[in-house]
Amino acid sequence: MGLTETVSFLFLVWFLSSSHILGALAERSIYIVHIDKSLMPKVFASHIYWYTSMIDSIGNVGQTSDHGFAPKILYTYDAAFHGFSALMSKDHLQALKKSPGFVSAHPDRSPTIDTTHTPDFLSLNTATGLWPASDYGKDVIIGVVDDGIWPENPSFKDDGMTPIPPRWKGSCQEGQEFNSSLCNLKLIGAKYFNKAVLAANPNLNLSMNSARTTSGHGTHVAGTAAGNYVEGVSFFGYGSGTARGIAPRARLAAYKVLWDEGSYEADVLAGIDQAVADGVDVISISLGFDFTPPYEEPISIASFGAMEKGIFVSTSAGNRGPDLGTVHNDIPWALTVAAGSVDRKFSGSLVLGNGLTIIGWSMFPARALVKDLPIIYNQTISACDSTESLLTVTDIGRSVVICDETVPFREQIRHVYEANARAGIFVSEEPAIFRSNFFPHPGVVISRQDAAKVIRYASKGSSPTATIKFQQTFVGTKPAPVVSASSSRGPSQGFPGILKPDIMAPGVLILAAYYPDSFEASIGSSILLSTDFTAISGTSMSCPHASGIAALLKGAHPEWSPAAVRSAMMTTATTLDNTRSPIKDTGRDNEVATPLAIGAGHVDPNRALDPGLIYDATPQDYINFICSMNFTRMQTLAITRSTSYNCSNPSSDLNYPSFVALYETSDQAKSKLVKKFRRTLTNVGNGAATYTAKVTAPKGSAVTISPKTIKFGKKYEKQSYSLTISYYGNENQIVSSGSVTWIEDDGNHVVTSPIVISPRVERS
Amino acid sequence: MGLTETVSFLFLVWFLSSSHILGALAERSIYIVHIDKSLMPKVFASHIYWYTSMIDSIGNVGQTSDHGFAPKILYTYDAAFHGFSALMSKDHLQALKKSPGFVSAHPDRSPTIDTTHTPDFLSLNTATGLWPASDYGKDVIIGVVDDGIWPENPSFKDDGMTPIPPRWKGSCQEGQEFNSSLCNLKLIGAKYFNKAVLAANPNLNLSMNSARTTSGHGTHVAGTAAGNYVEGVSFFGYGSGTARGIAPRARLAAYKVLWDEGSYEADVLAGIDQAVADGVDVISISLGFDFTPPYEEPISIASFGAMEKGIFVSTSAGNRGPDLGTVHNDIPWALTVAAGSVDRKFSGSLVLGNGLTIIGWSMFPARALVKDLPIIYNQTISACDSTESLLTVTDIGRSVVICDETVPFREQIRHVYEANARAGIFVSEEPAIFRSNFFPHPGVVISRQDAAKVIRYASKGSSPTATIKFQQTFVGTKPAPVVSASSSRGPSQGFPGILKPDIMAPGVLILAAYYPDSFEASIGSSILLSTDFTAISGTSMSCPHASGIAALLKGAHPEWSPAAVRSAMMTTATTLDNTRSPIKDTGRDNEVATPLAIGAGHVDPNRALDPGLIYDATPQDYINFICSMNFTRMQTLAITRSTSYNCSNPSSDLNYPSFVALYETSDQAKSKLVKKFRRTLTNVGNGAATYTAKVTAPKGSAVTISPKTIKFGKKYEKQSYSLTISYYGNENQIVSSGSVTWIEDDGNHVVTSPIVISPRVERS
Repeated sequence: MGLTETVSFLFLVWFLSSSHILGALAERSIYIVHIDKSLMPKVFASHIYWYTSMIDSIGNVGQTSDHGFAPKILYTYDAAFHGFSALMSKDHLQALKKSPGFVSAHPDRSPTIDTTHTPDFLSLNTATGLWPASDYGKDVIIGVVDDGIWPENPSFKDDGMTPIPPRWKGSCQEGQEFNSSLCNLKLIGAKYFNKAVLAANPNLNLSMNSARTTSGHGTHVAGTAAGNYVEGVSFFGYGSGTARGIAPRARLAAYKVLWDEGSYEADVLAGIDQAVADGVDVISISLGFDFTPPYEEPISIASFGAMEKGIFVSTSAGNRGPDLGTVHNDIPWALTVAAGSVDRKFSGSLVLGNGLTIIGWSMFPARALVKDLPIIYNQTISACDSTESLLTVTDIGRSVVICDETVPFREQIRHVYEANARAGIFVSEEPAIFRSNFFPHPGVVISRQDAAKVIRYASKGSSPTATIKFQQTFVGTKPAPVVSASSSRGPSQGFPGILKPDIMAPGVLILAAYYPDSFEASIGSSILLSTDFTAISGTSMSCPHASGIAALLKGAHPEWSPAAVRSAMMTTATTLDNTRSPIKDTGRDNEVATPLAIGAGHVDPNRALDPGLIYDATPQDYINFICSMNFTRMQTLAITRSTSYNCSNPSSDLNYPSFVALYETSDQAKSKLVKKFRRTLTNVGNGAATYTAKVTAPKGSAVTISPKTIKFGKKYEKQSYSLTISYYGNENQIVSSGSVTWIEDDGNHVVTSPIVISPRVERS
Repeated sequence: MGLTETVSFLFLVWFLSSSHILGALAERSIYIVHIDKSLMPKVFASHIYWYTSMIDSIGNVGQTSDHGFAPKILYTYDAAFHGFSALMSKDHLQALKKSPGFVSAHPDRSPTIDTTHTPDFLSLNTATGLWPASDYGKDVIIGVVDDGIWPENPSFKDDGMTPIPPRWKGSCQEGQEFNSSLCNLKLIGAKYFNKAVLAANPNLNLSMNSARTTSGHGTHVAGTAAGNYVEGVSFFGYGSGTARGIAPRARLAAYKVLWDEGSYEADVLAGIDQAVADGVDVISISLGFDFTPPYEEPISIASFGAMEKGIFVSTSAGNRGPDLGTVHNDIPWALTVAAGSVDRKFSGSLVLGNGLTIIGWSMFPARALVKDLPIIYNQTISACDSTESLLTVTDIGRSVVICDETVPFREQIRHVYEANARAGIFVSEEPAIFRSNFFPHPGVVISRQDAAKVIRYASKGSSPTATIKFQQTFVGTKPAPVVSASSSRGPSQGFPGILKPDIMAPGVLILAAYYPDSFEASIGSSILLSTDFTAISGTSMSCPHASGIAALLKGAHPEWSPAAVRSAMMTTATTLDNTRSPIKDTGRDNEVATPLAIGAGHVDPNRALDPGLIYDATPQDYINFICSMNFTRMQTLAITRSTSYNCSNPSSDLNYPSFVALYETSDQAKSKLVKKFRRTLTNVGNGAATYTAKVTAPKGSAVTISPKTIKFGKKYEKQSYSLTISYYGNENQIVSSGSVTWIEDDGNHVVTSPIVISPRVERS
């Protein structure tokens, strides 16, 4: 569409967070500067010369206060948006504002970051569905914007990969401990963006000045999205099997924008901008900026440019749940992914001498031998809150001790370790912990209910014994998925008219590629263990699942827009778990999860391959939506960038595959809430089809729809309908949800959108 | 040949070793009774009735002294030899001796027991040679006489196995925790033999009364010989890869004859007897009876019967080296296998802050993270002989300490562990230990030479650091193989005219199937680890390598006799290591190994497939050889069993593919030693061939050969030659060796036999 060649003037000014300002730098900050490129004088061969000229021209201002410091460009941006980032003083900024073409500037801000049975759990298979239909994502390119990559991880070998598509414009940037030969047919690009971190921290030596990771997060993300097949993988014996990404034949390009020494918007923007310029098809972003208005939020801004080019942007919802209103990356033109659990349990199984077997959980990282050993339960020791008392047990070195639910199990296990007991049995309702690098001694965690049986057995009878088996993995555990408590929740703060998150994907104890210099488990107090594959949790892990699925959908349907891909994923998602009951929310006492936690539900990739109908949206649709927000013109342009767009047709009715109505919680607002929506469906099934709507109204509401039956004459035909929510309930803080489902007459396609009515939640 | 249907009278009396005699049993012992079955009255339908009748008829003798105890048959034997074992008193025995057909009886005695990159090391490959030629041993059946089997080990899955050959007469015997469904197309038989252990130990409850192992030895042997392919195997991360036996498509039958509660000849004999009866093709025996004359040695006796039926018997040389004269299973009609090392090293690599990398060894059983940590070397702590002194190090928990070569490294590592140091660097010339289940803390063992560099680096300069990488495996290490120090050595005590051992096969840190209830590694003092695959060492591990190769040769050449198979393995073995230098002996200061350590050399299976010529031998040849020994007639018959054989043609010149001449070390014997041999070669090449002898005379000797050229007109033609050793040297205790090699004129076949001249060694 050539939109990026037209006028764009952005004008964000982000202020460097105080943690970035060091000593003499107090007066100097990194600014992201948005420029109206349409005003570039013809004398400049490229925007780079122009921007350099601008900076040069302000170089002499404020020399006194700045001790002669000259402003310095860090990056120029030209793909996702137009502008540059620069290290400069406030005086420089004031001077720059007078330059022709200057639109705005914002200070740099630091992002937060969010983290292989899952292909099976998602029913991906070689016989049928999305994997074969997409050729496993062959030739689709996923850009991972994160903390770099460990290129030697076997997930990034290129066995079985075909030559790189010629359209690829990216490259493998050399750097510290990273030469270009580390890229291959799987990892086709690797670049790093360090100018902001270096500018903000003069005299800093980066610990790894290249695309090589020093923390593993991006490696895990990349492996989850598109890692190659690796046999014999496990997390210290748990979850062993063949690792592979969701799109095992897709390509990966790594953009390192996060640094151990600090993370900066300017670097993040540079990475996304480069990914767009390089020609990726999907950008996976497992990081976010909390509590930032959309017109100041860099991922929102950069992903708008990506969307314009047809690039799908998948982002993490954040890990600030279960409170409402915590979702970040709540961007209407990107996908926002919540995290759910997987039907897998890393287990220790406890077998008592009487034959009773109890499945607890354990992540002790080795195959400890605990077989037919005495099991000890008595009041002196069972609190397990003191090493000394445990040492009163005769032959503690051969004993398995039962620890009551007293102090936290992590404290108990330390005492059990210090006392050199052979193993511990811990009573706790704590679920398998979020990131389990702390199970330093053989033991098993069992529930209160199971504990009663164990204690009864250990207390009576002579010579009770126990066997504990480690490195056990059970799949098919129920219920699954459940919503992770930490997964961030809607409603969206930035765009209250859009239901966010969009969807849920696996994000609990996801086993994928990692980097070898981290300790991911420990034994005792001094033995730290590393691994090439680790199990970690968070929306950072669910996001790349969605990225991989989007890549597969792009492979199967290259003609689909980002909105179409998202719509297919959303309208075919399931709200049921593997017990055929509604998905539960562990963050909310295992009540039924609402769309504020799971969006349209848990992603179902094979159904997304053939959604029947899609809710499509063009860049202009997003413009119209943005124009309906109460943004100033400058705020609007911060996102849309281009004056070729106009606000002549503002509409809050973005053609989105979900519905949200927020009510005010103030007393005055306790009247009826009525919200109307209009939506347009595109038939992507094969030929004519008739659909009939089925509505499940949220509790306390009525939902009307018109028409109730829609006929499509042929493929790609569009038809519209209207939907009205009338909410009568006015109980504060109650979230109620329902759905509208378009069912094809022959039952072949079922197209569901969630409806949620929620109190407005204000956060900042 | 029907030999087992003819007369046989054996008459061994083995006396129960004192350790087997318990309390009231003092007057009762297990005897192995040999019977001349040709004298069986026609009234008995089978030998079982006859033997039962014999025992019944003596039941009333000596009732006073025996407190009414009646003699009891444990097993009857009819395949490998004729007779039975029984629990009875001396009075019973005296009465039995008067029974018609009684030949002899011996008391039961306890055996000693003697352990997968090795297929690669042996150059077995799928493209060419013995593997494809034998169809990987398909349909060859290996009987493993040992301590049972862990049937669930993945090495015994039957993926890829075809239906069992109908000639198989064995079965899967049910027992404790062992139902017959545990057998499959790979593990086609499993039986257990407990009558002697139960008879010798009244009121004993066997801990596992079935073919299921409680120690893992036989499981390792079986997996080494013929385990199926198992991916992702390692010893706690070391040596990872695909495990498979030497004959991965051969069948296995397990005969459990060794018990935790004691091991008895009667049970061992019953197992071998059953294997012969069941129709195995190869029997693998990784156990032996030390210092037992051949006519009293059960494996010698039972394997004679196996040999008669064309069954190949492979045995372990024993682990009593490096002293000379320690070899057991020195049986002319069986293969005796020595143990050599493999070109693999389980390593810890040490990387110093200055970039220097040192490859030490480590078997710490986890992937400890030791990266860029302070390295400490100072006189206060470097002895590492006290936990207290180590605790004086500031921040010991983050430190890597260097331990000088003072107290044994096993003691040092305990102090390093107790002080909670992050890791230790140990200076020791100790090789990777024999069975490495004791490397309880992160560390690496380095040589004195490397230690000098490390200490120099750690002592000067500021902030020296070290990184240690664990779970490293190097293959292609040199030199390999070397003889294991513990591998038992010739000369043979039982048959001084036969050079034993015959051959060397891999037997150091062999990684193969194990059973899960053993701790094969430890971390700290209380964490014991188990594994499905362990790395252990000994001739017990080299024997099944040879068994597997024999199975492959049987598969490729079903018509070959056991002697032919052995000859092929021996005449094609190599005496060179992977540096093309003579194989060295770690038990003898790394001097060149003599045939008393390695026999004909290190087995080369692909060359054994096509040896050109073989030294064959028939049962009668063995009889003639036995008749030349200074055995009494009864001693001779103990082995040959059958009066259908006769001693009319005694010959010490067994047609064996090796030559040994022993000299007396007494003063009187310091005259010239002359020994003449006659040998017959069978042409197993394709058609006519001419061979010329090349002789390398042992130092101090002359070796003459006649004729020096032999022409074969066609395949299977036999030709003889004579060889005379004249030894002039008379230095006591010097072993000198040479060889005779028949080289085909076109160079296609090279047929080598070792010649060794050794002082006579007397052991008992």
